[in-house]
Amino acid sequence: MRDVYILGLGQTEVGEHWETSLRHLAWMALDAALKDAEIKTPDALFVGNVLAGQLSRQEHLGVLIADFSGLRGIEAATVEAAGASGGMAARQAYLAVASGMVDTALAVGVEKFTDTVGSRATAALTSATDTDWEAAQGATPTAIAALIMRRYMHEFDCTVADFAGFSVNAHANAKTNPNAMFHNTITAEAFAKAPMVADPVNMFDTAPDADGAAAVLLIGADALGKLGLEPSHPLVRIAGSAVATDSLALHDRPDPLFFRAANLSAGRAYKQAGVEPKDISVLELHDAYTVYAALSLEAGGFAPRGMGWRMAMDGGISLKGRTPLSTFGGLKARGNPGGATGVYQIVEAALQLRSEAGANQVADPHWALAQCLGGAGATAVTHILQRMQKV
Amino acid sequence: MRDVYILGLGQTEVGEHWETSLRHLAWMALDAALKDAEIKTPDALFVGNVLAGQLSRQEHLGVLIADFSGLRGIEAATVEAAGASGGMAARQAYLAVASGMVDTALAVGVEKFTDTVGSRATAALTSATDTDWEAAQGATPTAIAALIMRRYMHEFDCTVADFAGFSVNAHANAKTNPNAMFHNTITAEAFAKAPMVADPVNMFDTAPDADGAAAVLLIGADALGKLGLEPSHPLVRIAGSAVATDSLALHDRPDPLFFRAANLSAGRAYKQAGVEPKDISVLELHDAYTVYAALSLEAGGFAPRGMGWRMAMDGGISLKGRTPLSTFGGLKARGNPGGATGVYQIVEAALQLRSEAGANQVADPHWALAQCLGGAGATAVTHILQRMQKV
Repeated sequence: MRDVYILGLGQTEVGEHWETSLRHLAWMALDAALKDAEIKTPDALFVGNVLAGQLSRQEHLGVLIADFSGLRGIEAATVEAAGASGGMAARQAYLAVASGMVDTALAVGVEKFTDTVGSRATAALTSATDTDWEAAQGATPTAIAALIMRRYMHEFDCTVADFAGFSVNAHANAKTNPNAMFHNTITAEAFAKAPMVADPVNMFDTAPDADGAAAVLLIGADALGKLGLEPSHPLVRIAGSAVATDSLALHDRPDPLFFRAANLSAGRAYKQAGVEPKDISVLELHDAYTVYAALSLEAGGFAPRGMGWRMAMDGGISLKGRTPLSTFGGLKARGNPGGATGVYQIVEAALQLRSEAGANQVADPHWALAQCLGGAGATAVTHILQRMQKV
Repeated sequence: MRDVYILGLGQTEVGEHWETSLRHLAWMALDAALKDAEIKTPDALFVGNVLAGQLSRQEHLGVLIADFSGLRGIEAATVEAAGASGGMAARQAYLAVASGMVDTALAVGVEKFTDTVGSRATAALTSATDTDWEAAQGATPTAIAALIMRRYMHEFDCTVADFAGFSVNAHANAKTNPNAMFHNTITAEAFAKAPMVADPVNMFDTAPDADGAAAVLLIGADALGKLGLEPSHPLVRIAGSAVATDSLALHDRPDPLFFRAANLSAGRAYKQAGVEPKDISVLELHDAYTVYAALSLEAGGFAPRGMGWRMAMDGGISLKGRTPLSTFGGLKARGNPGGATGVYQIVEAALQLRSEAGANQVADPHWALAQCLGGAGATAVTHILQRMQKV
């Protein structure tokens, strides 16, 4: 299996793109990644998306986006795993390049939420849960997160206010990310008093559904020379790539406070990359809810069980902390454009390793971990990235 | 890149499965394929599906099906490319195994259409077209096929009756396929007089939307020994695997009578496999409409431009003909369960190469080609299979 590098990065602003169509939004990110990579036509395109079928009545996004982007003819497909769709698109691109079948592959994550009224968008989002056993009973993703958070608070003796650090950190980092949805600062006091969405998940606890697109161009290590490329940015290697699953329905899990899929996929990725949690200098986790950030830290080996929330309390996750988390604002403040989110995470982690993160730069990072989740942690996709010297 | 074999095959009956849920239907095919392969837990699962989000309000099928099938923990994702979703799931499974990242991967295609009233199902199906430019103007997949057929008849001087051979052949072959939706014989005379669906596409010209699931288990050649497997069925090798795209909207094509994606993907697959059209002894093409069968024959190099329809007139596509087509009934008579169709094609082609096709067996086949299309040929996935001696 050959080495795979990230050669190109692209992203749009995250927010409300009412005047830009789905295909146009995808093209903006895709075009930026191709220009960044100095490549005209990739061999393959994998699109991460969750809701275009339900919200825009448009399936078949692979060819839609390839065609609109002037790439007619290339291999193209859509990959879906709910909130983990973006990471899964990157995973497919990685497999395609690693196999040697293609030299270059683009992963593009794209989502348009905000053209649709909230209730319809929430109904569509809920199709990421177990429809027959959860959604049909009235559960929404936020309601399920609330169940998990309530139980976490009970088991590990903490309060809503104890989760504030995650959101405060996310907003602090988003402030200097020009692509972030939110640029406002929030305080721990404001967090503790925020109106409830689904008790105990409050307004400042949950990530905003948003529109956006992000893209990464992957290339086989030996294809750089073959294609006569001289990268103008530092190369980033995909050192680990892994997917795992848990039960889809929360009530089927022996321990609802353990993100088993996140744990399994991180473990597989560590093994492939030959690193441990302590080697990771940049962390992009699926902080759709603060309790998911805590549980992801625990599943990934960054905190003992029941202690994830403490990492956010003592500054350990800030840009200058031991384990910088959500360095561009995370889902919470950069925004959560569904199937694009996992690709944003990889773009942001790669910018850090390239030392191109500007005001959000973490000091001298060598390894980064990006992990996205589908449903309440039912699917987890983990990528470990490594900074390379120029080849 | 290592060789990839097909080790297990599974399928359900195609038809109306009102009393079986989507996950159960998928499990039936998956379980059959695992038993056939004598494997308990595959490393990865790729699900081909188009419409569960729109018709069943259920996305996230990868983990849903893995979980329900007792495979919690494994890698799982959904792959979508409209009518080509099944072939695309097999393609992803192939890439995963070929890369060496996993030793075994399951591709499962599953679709449930018939729980839903026809108009809603048709609206959902139409999301495989270009929604903004085709569906929004009132075009349905069948209306688009009718435009193509009308133009074909005009350019190549033939009539509706001249397409009868495809449907007559498909029904003749389905008669002895226990998993087929239709077991009735139809005659050329009945075809010529059938009521119109979208003139000139008639009742006997178009494939029925159906429920069904099919599965293939792929394994790396060197993993057979590693896992201590002694296959009890003849092995089939995936000698070629390729995907290509065209414009999504029909009106954007310079030549609406040339399936460019089918031509490109077949060409790439021939090149990888080192074979030519004349070497192929079994052909499973995307005969959702007879004119698509004709255009696929032409794009694949089996007939000159404008001559595809003639192959069906002279018996050349029957089980004993030069190029047996739709050997278990094809989309037309086995039935067209959307995202499962491409996997059914591969299962059927592999049964032929194993000499396990029973009454539908083609004499001594060495190579088979299975090709599925998304939209009006906008996406094409081609697999070329080779019969192997037992390893």
